[in-house]
Amino acid sequence: MRQSQLFTKTRREAPADEVSKNAILLTRAGFINKEMAGVYDFLPLGLRTLNKVMGIIREEMNKIGGQEIFMSSLQRKELWERTGRWNDQNVDVWFKTHLKEGAELGLGFTHEEPISNMLEQFVSSHKDLPFSVYQFQNKFRNETRAKSGIMRTREFIMKDLYSFSLNEAEHEAFYSKVAEAYKTIFKRAGLGDKTYMTRASGGSFSKFSHEFQTVCESGEDLISITNEENKEAINKEIAEGDLEWQKAVEVGNIFTLGTKFSDPDLKFKDENGEAHNVFMGSYGIGPARLVGTIVEVLSDEKGIVWPKEVAPFRVHLVSLNQNEVAEGIYKTLNAEGVEVLFDDRDLRAGEKFADSDLIGIPTRVVIGKNYSENQMLEVKERNSEEVRMMSTEDLLADLRK
Amino acid sequence: MRQSQLFTKTRREAPADEVSKNAILLTRAGFINKEMAGVYDFLPLGLRTLNKVMGIIREEMNKIGGQEIFMSSLQRKELWERTGRWNDQNVDVWFKTHLKEGAELGLGFTHEEPISNMLEQFVSSHKDLPFSVYQFQNKFRNETRAKSGIMRTREFIMKDLYSFSLNEAEHEAFYSKVAEAYKTIFKRAGLGDKTYMTRASGGSFSKFSHEFQTVCESGEDLISITNEENKEAINKEIAEGDLEWQKAVEVGNIFTLGTKFSDPDLKFKDENGEAHNVFMGSYGIGPARLVGTIVEVLSDEKGIVWPKEVAPFRVHLVSLNQNEVAEGIYKTLNAEGVEVLFDDRDLRAGEKFADSDLIGIPTRVVIGKNYSENQMLEVKERNSEEVRMMSTEDLLADLRK
Repeated sequence: MRQSQLFTKTRREAPADEVSKNAILLTRAGFINKEMAGVYDFLPLGLRTLNKVMGIIREEMNKIGGQEIFMSSLQRKELWERTGRWNDQNVDVWFKTHLKEGAELGLGFTHEEPISNMLEQFVSSHKDLPFSVYQFQNKFRNETRAKSGIMRTREFIMKDLYSFSLNEAEHEAFYSKVAEAYKTIFKRAGLGDKTYMTRASGGSFSKFSHEFQTVCESGEDLISITNEENKEAINKEIAEGDLEWQKAVEVGNIFTLGTKFSDPDLKFKDENGEAHNVFMGSYGIGPARLVGTIVEVLSDEKGIVWPKEVAPFRVHLVSLNQNEVAEGIYKTLNAEGVEVLFDDRDLRAGEKFADSDLIGIPTRVVIGKNYSENQMLEVKERNSEEVRMMSTEDLLADLRK
Repeated sequence: MRQSQLFTKTRREAPADEVSKNAILLTRAGFINKEMAGVYDFLPLGLRTLNKVMGIIREEMNKIGGQEIFMSSLQRKELWERTGRWNDQNVDVWFKTHLKEGAELGLGFTHEEPISNMLEQFVSSHKDLPFSVYQFQNKFRNETRAKSGIMRTREFIMKDLYSFSLNEAEHEAFYSKVAEAYKTIFKRAGLGDKTYMTRASGGSFSKFSHEFQTVCESGEDLISITNEENKEAINKEIAEGDLEWQKAVEVGNIFTLGTKFSDPDLKFKDENGEAHNVFMGSYGIGPARLVGTIVEVLSDEKGIVWPKEVAPFRVHLVSLNQNEVAEGIYKTLNAEGVEVLFDDRDLRAGEKFADSDLIGIPTRVVIGKNYSENQMLEVKERNSEEVRMMSTEDLLADLRK
């Protein structure tokens, strides 16, 4: 994409109404726009990154057999009354609204109730199990704390996966598969080194659950690393004894639900015709929180530093008064399938470099006087100070690695 | 995908609570699930089709330079009060809710107000124009009529494109480009023959607008074809005189907004430093309504007939007690990049064929006794009665066409 066409612009100054690092940098770089506290729009660069993250998650969910669906935000009261989760005393994050005819509706903050209800029509025999279903769907949560940028918002896309098994043993096997998939996701998103599978409370569903916690100064949780090599930790909420605590952000969680949401109506008959409730699990990742965490953890004083797999573009091609030759290289890179942001704007080098550092695309390729003199590109990785002189062919070979 | 793994099942009977053909067929075939009147979930087959439709629209929007974003559903009251569209007397489709702190919020039914507001930070000079921005975003409309299946719902993804031009002439040029893109979209979605660019009322924005209307018995509009060759029509709401009317479904619309939403704050300075309001247009397509219209218009007594570009899969591979060889052909097709639903279930041929007709995948490939005897596949297009005997190589060549 040509940067001269991009409708967003970078800002030198932090927005006055933001305190979190992720919101400040993402706003300055033109990735997001704030509609109100805890509610953000994704602008072209931000949506590209969000889509990259969702693409990684989707691939890993498909690999473990997840079937993708898309459920509604609008929720019928009756379904949630059965489990006691309609009441505002029990669930304090509902946004509620109503139909013109008067019936009260909720805006889903999760989907255990409607998905169990929906599946009653499809599950009857043990032969129908196991399977798992996931979606990327906008959740609504009426948060009172909404000062963490895109890490805790009132409206956000969540990847929620639900599993349906014959029994606890079958469930445990799938639960382990999800844990491995989650590790792969956080690794691909560039957070593998700092993310720990953390034993935590199971809330109202089970005794324990697992969270994936990324060590981060702005995190709201406290964890203690119990095994650095295996990347294991424990959440302070369930720990006994005197441990060393670090702040961390919960980037994912996996829950054993048991039969809480399948009871009474989501049942299957076993080989002997006996009815049992389906054994369930649920597994969440908030893609935007993951984007926010990447910014919190990996940025530097100049701006954002995107890992390759989640960057909005792979290459930032910066032309310094060389638009004619740069145009040719831009076309070559595009033809090779490389995603390029082409800074073809009429600005000084210093401004272009500052924008490039702020936006944080992994590889910056400058076409300046080294090119006009000896056809060499100046190639610099965002997370390194080294500038390498390369021919276009060598750059392409490097990008293919 | 293996059909034995798909969690949905087909139904022989129409659901008791549906009257529209699209909802009946899509429910029977396992594409959608009804949460309540006018609110549907998309199940794996349905989501695949919806994604195909969105993919076509996205490609055509990108071709005309549209920049994709993703805005919030939650809307601040103040923005809509300025244009008079907060009031329920003026806009009768709002779903409203409120923050815990008490402030009233709306759930966006469209996005002219927030997008104009958001763009004030990016537009200042004539050099910033023109550009266009689009999104696929969940809209909420508190409809009292919600009996048309997925063609008129209370919650739906809409592709809304907004254009920002210097003046009316520049706007008109882009408006024509969008009209051409829309024609391409409806053609690719299989509705080209029955879809007419229709002059209609401009509502409160302008004297006229254009709708894209697909001739369809269950449509809520009446149009008269004014030029069959050029696919032009007029909506009864603005027609004078005695014409012949046909029922039609509005599958898209394009509006000249002028400066209604840019006034007073979305301005640019011209070469002389003089300020002007940006000239806007808005352009909508509801992907789910398009899916519903395809079902209404193209299905037959046996089920759905998907056009190739929007089908959930390209090939329905049906094994009749030949799972071992079918497995090999399934792998070959997958390796060639063909999207295949593989009916590996242990059912009678008649049931498999009935399901295949109901689901409506364009090409059915049967592996039965013709295969065991002479390695020939029985290939039948969903919209034809002819059965062709083909080798796997010939099938692949045929699919590549």
